[in-house]
Amino acid sequence: MSRYWSPLVHTLSPYVPGEQPKIAQLIKLNTNEHPWPPSPRVAAAIAAELAGEAGQASGERLRLYPDPTASALRATLARLHGLDAVQVFVGNGSDEVLAHAFQALLNHRRADGTARPLLFPDITYSFYPTYCRLYGITPQTVALDDRLQLNVDDLIAAARAHDAGGVIFPNPNAPTGSGVARAEVERLLRALPDTVVVVDEAYVDFGAESALPLIAAHPNLLVVHTLSKSRALAGLRVGCAFGQAELIEALVRVKDSFNSYPLDRLALVGAQAALEDADWFERACRAVIDSREKLTAELAGLGFDVLPSQANFVFAAHPQHDAAALARALRERAIIVRHFSRPERIADRLRITIGTPAQCDALVAALREILRPQG
Amino acid sequence: MSRYWSPLVHTLSPYVPGEQPKIAQLIKLNTNEHPWPPSPRVAAAIAAELAGEAGQASGERLRLYPDPTASALRATLARLHGLDAVQVFVGNGSDEVLAHAFQALLNHRRADGTARPLLFPDITYSFYPTYCRLYGITPQTVALDDRLQLNVDDLIAAARAHDAGGVIFPNPNAPTGSGVARAEVERLLRALPDTVVVVDEAYVDFGAESALPLIAAHPNLLVVHTLSKSRALAGLRVGCAFGQAELIEALVRVKDSFNSYPLDRLALVGAQAALEDADWFERACRAVIDSREKLTAELAGLGFDVLPSQANFVFAAHPQHDAAALARALRERAIIVRHFSRPERIADRLRITIGTPAQCDALVAALREILRPQG
Repeated sequence: MSRYWSPLVHTLSPYVPGEQPKIAQLIKLNTNEHPWPPSPRVAAAIAAELAGEAGQASGERLRLYPDPTASALRATLARLHGLDAVQVFVGNGSDEVLAHAFQALLNHRRADGTARPLLFPDITYSFYPTYCRLYGITPQTVALDDRLQLNVDDLIAAARAHDAGGVIFPNPNAPTGSGVARAEVERLLRALPDTVVVVDEAYVDFGAESALPLIAAHPNLLVVHTLSKSRALAGLRVGCAFGQAELIEALVRVKDSFNSYPLDRLALVGAQAALEDADWFERACRAVIDSREKLTAELAGLGFDVLPSQANFVFAAHPQHDAAALARALRERAIIVRHFSRPERIADRLRITIGTPAQCDALVAALREILRPQG
Repeated sequence: MSRYWSPLVHTLSPYVPGEQPKIAQLIKLNTNEHPWPPSPRVAAAIAAELAGEAGQASGERLRLYPDPTASALRATLARLHGLDAVQVFVGNGSDEVLAHAFQALLNHRRADGTARPLLFPDITYSFYPTYCRLYGITPQTVALDDRLQLNVDDLIAAARAHDAGGVIFPNPNAPTGSGVARAEVERLLRALPDTVVVVDEAYVDFGAESALPLIAAHPNLLVVHTLSKSRALAGLRVGCAFGQAELIEALVRVKDSFNSYPLDRLALVGAQAALEDADWFERACRAVIDSREKLTAELAGLGFDVLPSQANFVFAAHPQHDAAALARALRERAIIVRHFSRPERIADRLRITIGTPAQCDALVAALREILRPQG
């Protein structure tokens, strides 16, 4: 508390990211990073940007500002998804893109000045309520069903009951890993044609159905992607959003009122190179999906209840073991996974990122040891 | 205009950065970039981060999130300036740092709910009014004097007259290049002990007096720096702020409610390497200052009125020539400088970035040709 702080600051409760500990030989399965190195084209493109033209000193290009419109990267993303460049927005990680979307598209009021709430699942990415506080948006949660699935009929009913000003959900959802079919997303878009629906597809490439093909027919749809997960570039901070030009323009207006150059020169070229490597992408997604299926079966064999996942993580509960205690026991063995103590409905589960086959094997071996009856 | 936009979006008028044209052999003196390549340690550090440890694939570290607290970079900045790490904040360029400062520290209201305005000079960095619109802050400008100097007594008087909620100014100011002495900044801080004063020192290393030594005694002071100018890293997007821990905590709360990881892994190590190269820094600042003094004398010789500059640019008017016409004539010769048509008080001036000696010579030769009586 401080007399110098803007009043807003006193009300914030910031998002807490998964820890990035510095432990040697750690098996890090807590922040949904990709187990494999990114496409080799990424480092090559960054090295080429550092080298510059003949006669330039190494790093010389860094003295110049990057392209504030990221036109080359946006053109690449547009080509990749069959869109026009004016339908593509890029930012400093999908968290920045989401923040701009909350401010630019999801903050609505009625004619009498009262807030129209923003709908999202009760169990979801915990940054959403944080953005709501930052921008003075009223959150309204919609409960997942008993199997932690998001039900589109529940979203539609809640949107109508609460006169929602917007809807956002991850697809697949986090931390559950469960996706909603494209036809269901389309049903939602049709039911709420005057409401912006943001589909946060951070994990979509690991097996869910993307809503991108729905953009052409639905001016109320914004789809958010990231290169942190399926492109293995969490360390480079590049996210993007797709929608009709009208929605993208709102994001651009906010971005250009906040920071002209959110992506540095190296992130721009690295991201572009990653997106251009279709072979790497297919192989790497396939490898994660195969590991996920194997790990899911092995965890089930150890007695875990594992939600069907379309993401690069699984969400698992053991009926006889406390999840927090399991996480602690794994940590003693230099394996870290993520446990959310809140909300209580998921306190019995662990969110486990899909590692390499060797890391998954080590995890299963450690769990087998931990679960073995003592004495 | 769109029914999907948050009402705020309709009110925004985004900042327009200087253009980044793709013209071959261009002499680019329009966005105050450094004329020299950055320290060679920058590219070396980035290459080392790409290489990773023995046995890693090139770029492998990019699969992992960066340190969300940027602890190594903040420790380096703290050491450099004799501060504690809790007195240091870093962000994605000083524009992002400034945006957070506007939201976290400069948005105040009276007990009756009316806005306390934010004071800044009438001629200054044109992003300030943009941030005000983004965060609903009421701007209140204070006129520079006849020689375009900022007068601290005028700031103090205006702060009292308007019950200001905050004060911000660049030191040296942009686009004028004129600085305020540290003793004057201290007088301002003492006169307004309950008001946050943000000193935006983007250009301070080219000859102005930094307010950093005042932090220890003044809990109301925030100093903002960037690596874009004096470290020649506009393309890497790294900015920082310094102040007592209470002010920094406000920035951290906003940042952690917006984007956990604003700096990517390459920007973190590149920035740190740049800051550690004191020799490069001294030589490069000296070179710019020497070129500025020479260019100032040459422009005066051509009849220009050049404001005394403590920055890496000069702000010059020619009594017999229209500034916009001069800028167009220079552009025809592949030399671009910046002309602001608003406010009218400065429409007769050009802001010219200090280039290499060869670029400055080419500029002077072009101006000599343009100014030569026709026929």
